[in-house]
Amino acid sequence: MKISCTQENLNQGLFIVSHIASKNMALPILNNILIQVDKNTIKFSATNLEIGVSCIIRGKVEEDGEFTVQSRLIADYAALLPKEKIDLSVAESKKEGEDQVLAISCKNHNTKIKGQPAADFPLIPQIDRKNLYVMNCQELRRAISQVIFAVSGSETRPEINGVFFKFEGDNLVLAATDSYRLAEKSVKLGKKSKGTNQSVIVPARTLQELQRILGSFKDPAAISEIEDVEIYLGENQILFVLGDIELISRLVEGQYPDYRQIIPKESNTKIVLNIAELINAAKTASLFARSGIYDINLDFNKDEIVVSAANNQLGENISKLSGKISGQQNSIVVNYRYLLDGLQNLDAEEAELSIIDGGNPCVIKTAGKDSDYLYIIMPIKQ
Amino acid sequence: MKISCTQENLNQGLFIVSHIASKNMALPILNNILIQVDKNTIKFSATNLEIGVSCIIRGKVEEDGEFTVQSRLIADYAALLPKEKIDLSVAESKKEGEDQVLAISCKNHNTKIKGQPAADFPLIPQIDRKNLYVMNCQELRRAISQVIFAVSGSETRPEINGVFFKFEGDNLVLAATDSYRLAEKSVKLGKKSKGTNQSVIVPARTLQELQRILGSFKDPAAISEIEDVEIYLGENQILFVLGDIELISRLVEGQYPDYRQIIPKESNTKIVLNIAELINAAKTASLFARSGIYDINLDFNKDEIVVSAANNQLGENISKLSGKISGQQNSIVVNYRYLLDGLQNLDAEEAELSIIDGGNPCVIKTAGKDSDYLYIIMPIKQ
Repeated sequence: MKISCTQENLNQGLFIVSHIASKNMALPILNNILIQVDKNTIKFSATNLEIGVSCIIRGKVEEDGEFTVQSRLIADYAALLPKEKIDLSVAESKKEGEDQVLAISCKNHNTKIKGQPAADFPLIPQIDRKNLYVMNCQELRRAISQVIFAVSGSETRPEINGVFFKFEGDNLVLAATDSYRLAEKSVKLGKKSKGTNQSVIVPARTLQELQRILGSFKDPAAISEIEDVEIYLGENQILFVLGDIELISRLVEGQYPDYRQIIPKESNTKIVLNIAELINAAKTASLFARSGIYDINLDFNKDEIVVSAANNQLGENISKLSGKISGQQNSIVVNYRYLLDGLQNLDAEEAELSIIDGGNPCVIKTAGKDSDYLYIIMPIKQ
Repeated sequence: MKISCTQENLNQGLFIVSHIASKNMALPILNNILIQVDKNTIKFSATNLEIGVSCIIRGKVEEDGEFTVQSRLIADYAALLPKEKIDLSVAESKKEGEDQVLAISCKNHNTKIKGQPAADFPLIPQIDRKNLYVMNCQELRRAISQVIFAVSGSETRPEINGVFFKFEGDNLVLAATDSYRLAEKSVKLGKKSKGTNQSVIVPARTLQELQRILGSFKDPAAISEIEDVEIYLGENQILFVLGDIELISRLVEGQYPDYRQIIPKESNTKIVLNIAELINAAKTASLFARSGIYDINLDFNKDEIVVSAANNQLGENISKLSGKISGQQNSIVVNYRYLLDGLQNLDAEEAELSIIDGGNPCVIKTAGKDSDYLYIIMPIKQ
């Protein structure tokens, strides 16, 4: 194997794949990245057996070959190299038993990194590219960030440890819940989509990795500005294709809860108010919430919204906000952390809260327009 | 007690003092700040019994009095309030056994914070303001940052857990060591200084707190731009006065080691080289240093500097730098963390390294001029 490339291309390729490599005592090679050079293509891959990621980088191929080296070491090293041409090569080992090394040279730096043969690296699965869905990268990124925080961390219910992806007609609906609150977002699919209506559960870890990669595209130094992401669904697997980058993951097995049935269809009180003001009032009240309960009170009366909390040890806080209240006088007690999570994800100046009473879920949306985002909090019953 | 002030003044005063208040199971009131209003002066104080800090804030006094409230709670709360006028008051308790509260109101926010009577708050010691030394705030801040990282964390030798302050003539010399490396910095004293020649050891924790306060002066929102710091030495105590802010601390008892004797007076090799290049080469080599030993090799031969490291598990790295070498061919093995610490504190483009041999300390200074900063690393002997 013998290649050369710019420091930027090497660094960016390693940034994409190196994160997924991880320490695994049973299979130490998972700590490595796989470098494959074949027919003028340079490809880096890594896997943790649940997620596989690969990336093709630009460079000049002088000799085909493949090799694996420790992911973190080569990524840290490449990041320190000057922005110059870098030569990478693996020589055929001459003596039996001698460790093979990846030689890297760049300007005044010369390095030899020990590695393992590519033959020991696990296969990253492939899927049939049949069920294709296309959407805008940054829209998908924003949609994931609006729901992923609500994913449950519980290990007893694996089906809510992921985000529900429901492909239906021209839309993808994403939903996440930990049974205390629920976030749901709808995104338009691109015209090239030709997949069938299907629902799957994507592990939160996979989406975090996807977010990391999508986030790097905002960086001017990123590999390229990719507009669309292609999503393919296979048997128990999902593949995200972003230009020269591929991320494949297993899906979560099981049945996602039928969350639509808990979304209240009616309400007794609707409140429209400034989001920034409500966030600020919830934060000041939060300092006086009871520890472990995180309870703050929301009271709605005529055109006055009162956000308050009281605590035997610390004292109490009352903030008054103005807003537009329609329907009856009402009140609800909520966990301020769940309230803030939802409010901070609304892309608007004003929110609309809908309430039946203090014993039923509170629905939060962007005010004034047909919202593609919905957030629901279960009340703390007194 | 009844006062009013701007949110900015309240917030800044709390920023200065609240950090030193800390959880103390034996004396819970140390978690509070003391608010004293007396003769048109509003003063906030906090102490951990080793360090005491106080700050006078601007505001309007309507009624004298004093009270203590939980430091973190009031600081977090004040930071969330709008930039408006804030009213603070403590009412005399009417019923026996009723908790006293500090009432805070600002625009639409109304709060009551429970507190404890000021009578229970420990006295913060005062010292005779005789031995005065004056110096520029930001020069002192920079000098402390150039030495404090070398302070020992060892508990068996408390005398090197602090920074050595030697007031001598027109200069203050600061020194710190953990016996593996040593940093020494000299600062000019201001003309108003009238203290005698003295040496003391100031606890690292005290200087970290001073740095935090000095650092806040760069913030445009800080209380005021204070140019000079006044330092007073008392029996076992040191007082730093920064305008309306006072920081008093106990001193470390014991004799500081006579570190001057270990500074080599001669050398066999002097090397002048670019600091950024040496930092980069040390970082790339560091990836191949042996774990727990952190060893990298520096070789000096004619006009070539070779920085290298090798590791049985990982591989090896060699970087070549150009520089000006005078004297004999030489080499030394050093801990890369200690080398980087020193290099990152030199205010220059080029460093001068002086070496006797691989068995003696390496001296690092700014090249070309009479340096007021000196850094010494003990070698790793092979």
